[in-house]
Amino acid sequence: MSPHAPFMRPVVENLEASRIREVANEGLGRDNVLKFWFGESDEVTPDFIREAAMASLQAGETFYAHNLGLPELREALAVYTDGLHPGRGVAHWLDRLAVTSGGVNGLMLASQALVEAGDEVVVVTPAWPNLVAQPLIMGANVKSVPLRVLSTGPRAGAWALDMDALLSAITPATRLLIVNAPNNPTGWTLTRDEQATILAHCRRTGTWILADEVYERLYYAGDTANGAASSFLDVAEPDDRVVVAHSFSKSFLMTGWRLGWLVLPAALTPAMGKLIEFNTSCAPVFVQRGATVALQRGAEVTPALVAHLKTCRDTLVPLLRAVPGVTLAEPLGGMYAFFKLQGQDDCLAVAKRLVREAGIGLAPGSAFSLEAAGWLRWCFASRDTHRLEEGVLRLRRWIAAQPGGGV
Amino acid sequence: MSPHAPFMRPVVENLEASRIREVANEGLGRDNVLKFWFGESDEVTPDFIREAAMASLQAGETFYAHNLGLPELREALAVYTDGLHPGRGVAHWLDRLAVTSGGVNGLMLASQALVEAGDEVVVVTPAWPNLVAQPLIMGANVKSVPLRVLSTGPRAGAWALDMDALLSAITPATRLLIVNAPNNPTGWTLTRDEQATILAHCRRTGTWILADEVYERLYYAGDTANGAASSFLDVAEPDDRVVVAHSFSKSFLMTGWRLGWLVLPAALTPAMGKLIEFNTSCAPVFVQRGATVALQRGAEVTPALVAHLKTCRDTLVPLLRAVPGVTLAEPLGGMYAFFKLQGQDDCLAVAKRLVREAGIGLAPGSAFSLEAAGWLRWCFASRDTHRLEEGVLRLRRWIAAQPGGGV
Repeated sequence: MSPHAPFMRPVVENLEASRIREVANEGLGRDNVLKFWFGESDEVTPDFIREAAMASLQAGETFYAHNLGLPELREALAVYTDGLHPGRGVAHWLDRLAVTSGGVNGLMLASQALVEAGDEVVVVTPAWPNLVAQPLIMGANVKSVPLRVLSTGPRAGAWALDMDALLSAITPATRLLIVNAPNNPTGWTLTRDEQATILAHCRRTGTWILADEVYERLYYAGDTANGAASSFLDVAEPDDRVVVAHSFSKSFLMTGWRLGWLVLPAALTPAMGKLIEFNTSCAPVFVQRGATVALQRGAEVTPALVAHLKTCRDTLVPLLRAVPGVTLAEPLGGMYAFFKLQGQDDCLAVAKRLVREAGIGLAPGSAFSLEAAGWLRWCFASRDTHRLEEGVLRLRRWIAAQPGGGV
Repeated sequence: MSPHAPFMRPVVENLEASRIREVANEGLGRDNVLKFWFGESDEVTPDFIREAAMASLQAGETFYAHNLGLPELREALAVYTDGLHPGRGVAHWLDRLAVTSGGVNGLMLASQALVEAGDEVVVVTPAWPNLVAQPLIMGANVKSVPLRVLSTGPRAGAWALDMDALLSAITPATRLLIVNAPNNPTGWTLTRDEQATILAHCRRTGTWILADEVYERLYYAGDTANGAASSFLDVAEPDDRVVVAHSFSKSFLMTGWRLGWLVLPAALTPAMGKLIEFNTSCAPVFVQRGATVALQRGAEVTPALVAHLKTCRDTLVPLLRAVPGVTLAEPLGGMYAFFKLQGQDDCLAVAKRLVREAGIGLAPGSAFSLEAAGWLRWCFASRDTHRLEEGVLRLRRWIAAQPGGGV
């Protein structure tokens, strides 16, 4: 081999493998582990959605489809988007949609469209690790702006945005800001005022905003007109440099279907169609048929799901806060309780021990950022809230068994 | 907006939109067009494959799956690969497989793993346009090495490799060679000796080979032990810098399922798992269930399909060669007749006129490279060979109606 050629790209070689999966591997072959590590409910996709996909397969819809998505699905998405962000009309949104092979695929496509090698990208962290990895794959320099933990006040233990730190990090040299709110893992959300402030700043610097809003509907504060978390779409003009990434995974119980969508400035839509051609070409028609009825009959799914997730949150959070040594603020959105365990700073090691010694599967905070080392993420999307109670009981017992009672 | 920031990446802005789709758009609203433009059969995926996917949906397999593919599918792929390329054993291949969201997705992942911005990539053309677009998206400099048209001999009109031109184009500065054989659109194939020569050269220069072998099984020459076209896997050592891209689309009539796989050096497999996480995370389980039975019962699908496609080829090619002004060599592999129409050099315009004036949908050669301007691609994968005969009749009539009889 010629010595001048490295085996693979160093940036790819150095991408961190998932620490969540590293913990999950500890559970292989153990059948008594309560699994709260992945970001998905244990509930199967509703029958009528699966039946629509099965009917499509039965009808022989096994051919290539449009790059930007089935017309029927695009129409349903435009109606859905107009319902959540009223005022512009369904036709407006039709020109601004691209169906993607999952939320993560949409985010990757956005990085491909916008990020040149050597560009500077700012990511608010802790965040889903994919948000940092994607611009790295495109050759960008990624600058992290950490949320900070409130130490006092009614929301002590909650992660919050330091707006000054964020705005001073975003300069005319910043090509793209990536922000996920409601946030995985912290449950942090952005207010409409904060979104407007960030947008105004990014207009001045010429910076694109890539907003991962897949948890938009999983919002529990009840302080917005549509019940959902505030969106950058609510403050942006149609031609602002804003791309919003969505997924069917969380709001429609469709994680395994790998389907999402982007909302784009209309001028970016044709380029996105080309990028989809060169990445996955299209999503399967039968998958898109399932998603179409999911949107059309969404009233049968999402409100009940959100109400149930709120029950899950309200079951888990008080129990967890009552465990000695646990620091935790109530999450406003998302489906995770993100907590700190006093005296346990190596969260990867703790998470592995919890699998082996307590039969609880949690995700280590260090999967999401350096600042979150010492924290643990608990996905509370559980069909049966007794699983959450049993999980807390196991955690409590494990802590009590540690030297010094674990605290 | 800040003037220093372009709207989107110029390289993405400048990617050519599909000229095949541009022609297909001419057919919108016309129901009398015989469509031979896309690279897919008009045959629905076999029942038993669709039924396996439906059973999986029925059983509620709607959750996230492994990045590298379902264990059952990986096992079936290892058995399949060992059957075509015997000698190393099933266990050997298990470490070298990654399931991807379509063949195109596998090719994109390979570019992400290997191509740094500014790297030099050599592509043999004419080729499927995605093969050039993908390294461009990664910021590479793409150098095209054109096949040349034989003007004399028994295969006059066939496209052939100029080995000297290819080898002199690949230098120590070349990071990656991308080659698609059996070739879309020309039907050109590589012999085992040619593959060995290219590999030996690339070992000297430290160049990776990305071989798009999705048409491996669609091979009609009958001069190989397994009936398939020769593969780089037949000449490469396990740790050679060779990645082979495959798809379920062509050999199993599963275009719309968006599922493929890569065969990699084992040392690259973990990195590919990470890249899959950051691109699509995984393929749907129910899609993978369909593919698993497709492989397990492949003997019921692929041999009959290949025999039928050979009949299609042998129906179309002689008829087409008999049309005045047509130059065409018999394709050895793939599912395309690629022909030149004398006196018609603007193939995009001709293809559009053929839609409007003759009711025939063909793909323009200029979609595949500059050298192929003036050529047309006809996909002969047709359930009913009468469609092919009717198409030739329409073409013959259209040519006769041109000034000077079209020639």
